[in-house]
Amino acid sequence: MSLALLTDKYELTMLAAALRDGTAHRRTTFEVFARRLPEGRRYGVVAGTARFVEALAQFTFDDATLAALSDFCGRETLAYLADYRFRGDVDGYAEGELYFPGSPVLAVHGTFGECVVLETLALSILNHDTAIASAAARMAHAAEGRPLIEMGSRRTHEHAAVAAARAAYIAGFTGSSNLEAQRTYGVPALGTSAHAFTLLHTTAGGPGDERLGRRTSEWEKAAFKAQIDALGVGTTLLVDTYDITAGVANAVEVAGPELGAVRIDSGDLGVLARQVRDQLDGLGATRTRIVVSGDLDEFAIAELRAEPVDIFGVGTSVVTGSGAPTASMVYKLVEVDGIPVEKRSSHKESHGGRKQALRVAKSTGTIVEEVVYPFGGNPSVQPGMIERPLMVTLVREGEPVRGLGLDAARDRVKQGLGSLPWDGLKLSRGEPAIPTRLISPARL
Amino acid sequence: MSLALLTDKYELTMLAAALRDGTAHRRTTFEVFARRLPEGRRYGVVAGTARFVEALAQFTFDDATLAALSDFCGRETLAYLADYRFRGDVDGYAEGELYFPGSPVLAVHGTFGECVVLETLALSILNHDTAIASAAARMAHAAEGRPLIEMGSRRTHEHAAVAAARAAYIAGFTGSSNLEAQRTYGVPALGTSAHAFTLLHTTAGGPGDERLGRRTSEWEKAAFKAQIDALGVGTTLLVDTYDITAGVANAVEVAGPELGAVRIDSGDLGVLARQVRDQLDGLGATRTRIVVSGDLDEFAIAELRAEPVDIFGVGTSVVTGSGAPTASMVYKLVEVDGIPVEKRSSHKESHGGRKQALRVAKSTGTIVEEVVYPFGGNPSVQPGMIERPLMVTLVREGEPVRGLGLDAARDRVKQGLGSLPWDGLKLSRGEPAIPTRLISPARL
Repeated sequence: MSLALLTDKYELTMLAAALRDGTAHRRTTFEVFARRLPEGRRYGVVAGTARFVEALAQFTFDDATLAALSDFCGRETLAYLADYRFRGDVDGYAEGELYFPGSPVLAVHGTFGECVVLETLALSILNHDTAIASAAARMAHAAEGRPLIEMGSRRTHEHAAVAAARAAYIAGFTGSSNLEAQRTYGVPALGTSAHAFTLLHTTAGGPGDERLGRRTSEWEKAAFKAQIDALGVGTTLLVDTYDITAGVANAVEVAGPELGAVRIDSGDLGVLARQVRDQLDGLGATRTRIVVSGDLDEFAIAELRAEPVDIFGVGTSVVTGSGAPTASMVYKLVEVDGIPVEKRSSHKESHGGRKQALRVAKSTGTIVEEVVYPFGGNPSVQPGMIERPLMVTLVREGEPVRGLGLDAARDRVKQGLGSLPWDGLKLSRGEPAIPTRLISPARL
Repeated sequence: MSLALLTDKYELTMLAAALRDGTAHRRTTFEVFARRLPEGRRYGVVAGTARFVEALAQFTFDDATLAALSDFCGRETLAYLADYRFRGDVDGYAEGELYFPGSPVLAVHGTFGECVVLETLALSILNHDTAIASAAARMAHAAEGRPLIEMGSRRTHEHAAVAAARAAYIAGFTGSSNLEAQRTYGVPALGTSAHAFTLLHTTAGGPGDERLGRRTSEWEKAAFKAQIDALGVGTTLLVDTYDITAGVANAVEVAGPELGAVRIDSGDLGVLARQVRDQLDGLGATRTRIVVSGDLDEFAIAELRAEPVDIFGVGTSVVTGSGAPTASMVYKLVEVDGIPVEKRSSHKESHGGRKQALRVAKSTGTIVEEVVYPFGGNPSVQPGMIERPLMVTLVREGEPVRGLGLDAARDRVKQGLGSLPWDGLKLSRGEPAIPTRLISPARL
């Protein structure tokens, strides 16, 4: 399916005007960067790079697509688009790399015509996926190695959900509830059970209120038995449909002490986790794990670190970027036929000229500075420091140049978090963990 | 393309267990509702209903989809899914209808098996689209009839962007920058120009700094001329690449006083709009309109109401729900074989039993109450009040029963906003504009 209309109209009207005066064929570089991190964030995590690279092959204009443009595109523009295929180059930060304000996370090189039409697609993918990965990395760090399940598909657009599962996995989540993310990207699919399944086992013949507890236990045990028959005792039983203490007792009664896990989805999760742990241990189910869910975010996860919680289920907050649903990256023309260009009016300056970037670390590995400098330059770095180039080759003459696997991206996030100065990992609001030093090209 | 894997894994493991113990064939009703509105919001706007109804036809399991499930679904489950097609009924609030806490915005009736697997799809679509429409309606009201262009595609997932454009249009926006939204849904595509187009016209041969202003004016005029040659003088020229005053002068010099519009995308938009209006009028371009954009939300739009702004361009805030990126709706089993069921443990109660809903208004049309009552009931309403049933028939035996056009949804939003009590339209944080009266069924 063509992705070419996932585009803002003005890109095609600009193309039309540039084809008419010949400037569409000038050589250009566009860069993607964020002027700032979301408020109070200390770092961001780049995600979406591989999705963008893969999408390029589908960014072509078939007949049906061209027909949809014929009301405002002239013949010359339609002919150009019919032949369109991105044949330029792309460099950028690898997926999973940390970024900071001004980091040139993607650079697209080619003619104005071939680059300008990619603005919306590049930004949509990077802004969404990066927002999710950046929030998810904070959660993964807060969980201190305990597994996290992404289960927020229902709280975001149905296709965004798939990309969100992927981004959360890159950032350190163990897996996702989303089945399409497993099929498309190999993100491990995980799941428990819903209250609906227990309620499904309600039977008629209403008892008086004094007998309701006994009846609900019967229904709950019928549901637990059905789940175990189908999925084995290693499954996770949801114990808070009626009464949690009764639910835990019913779970162990039906499954035995080898029950895989119980899930608590409401109430004061810390208090309940302790009670449930004691109860499970008392019933001999010492290896049964406790899964908690219910409006968790990175702060709630950190708060639960001291509690006997084994697995976190995270929904809304991760798929909505925990308060920062977009990374606010922009796609700016920085060079035309070798001439650095930039907007000059107030407030939203861009910085002209094609760039490269280095990250500087102490010998211990702790990072101290991001250096963004003109392409081909040779910035000075303090002696004894380790410098690492950040931009990698992603596309050459329109073709992807490397595998962009999720495992490598996951490793990169781990290494990145490990390289932050100690206060860079704090969840509280603060400044970016390291400063960005921007070296401007000689001005026009 | 099959949408069947846009689903949480647990829906299929619950199905497997329910097939095994026979409960998968029980008759059920699931309802979609929000326990509360986003914090401080006074109303919400339902959107996504028609997208959900249309998606049902694609929610089928082809061979490739089944293959992706074979690692955890047994033969019985796979056979059930191979035949799956939703054959049940759906009722709900029409698109564009207002909603309040507890409003049963969608009700899905069918066997447990056929309803349980739709949870994620229904919620993803309704939570996303409703969040956008609810924010967009506040912006449309704040603009007091002035046109609003949705231009936020780049700040959200590439496919979410298309649904966001549609939802914003339902809520009262004039159109969107997104071309796929035009093709798929007929949302009018609108656009202006980017700084990149002006910067593209930079030429080499660097002047001294004292001559830079003259050179940038040459570049800007070349860009404006190219745009007008391609698109006519009715186009919108972006005047803040270098210097706004020079930009406006250049725009009118190149286009003449019949220039359609100028856009300002940075700086203090109110002050600049006044300056630019004076300048345009002084140049005889009295009918040239002023488009402003740049981090606008409903509050910024309201602030600019007193200024000579003709058109608002809104990006990030509308596609991210202006602080509320999800509507937090849930999908709950409320009835099994005619028996009302509900979760009983703390904090997250649902209310058992299939429901209907009425909205009660004074004879003036101002609404006073939402009444949610057991299906088939006959709630008492104060004499002299007008009552209007809110749930309409959407699907019967799996087939959509009505056209679900965007124009009707747009009208519904307008009527809905017009029916709110005066303080329901305030942008400040507050309580829901009307109370919801929930009449429970006789308890089990």
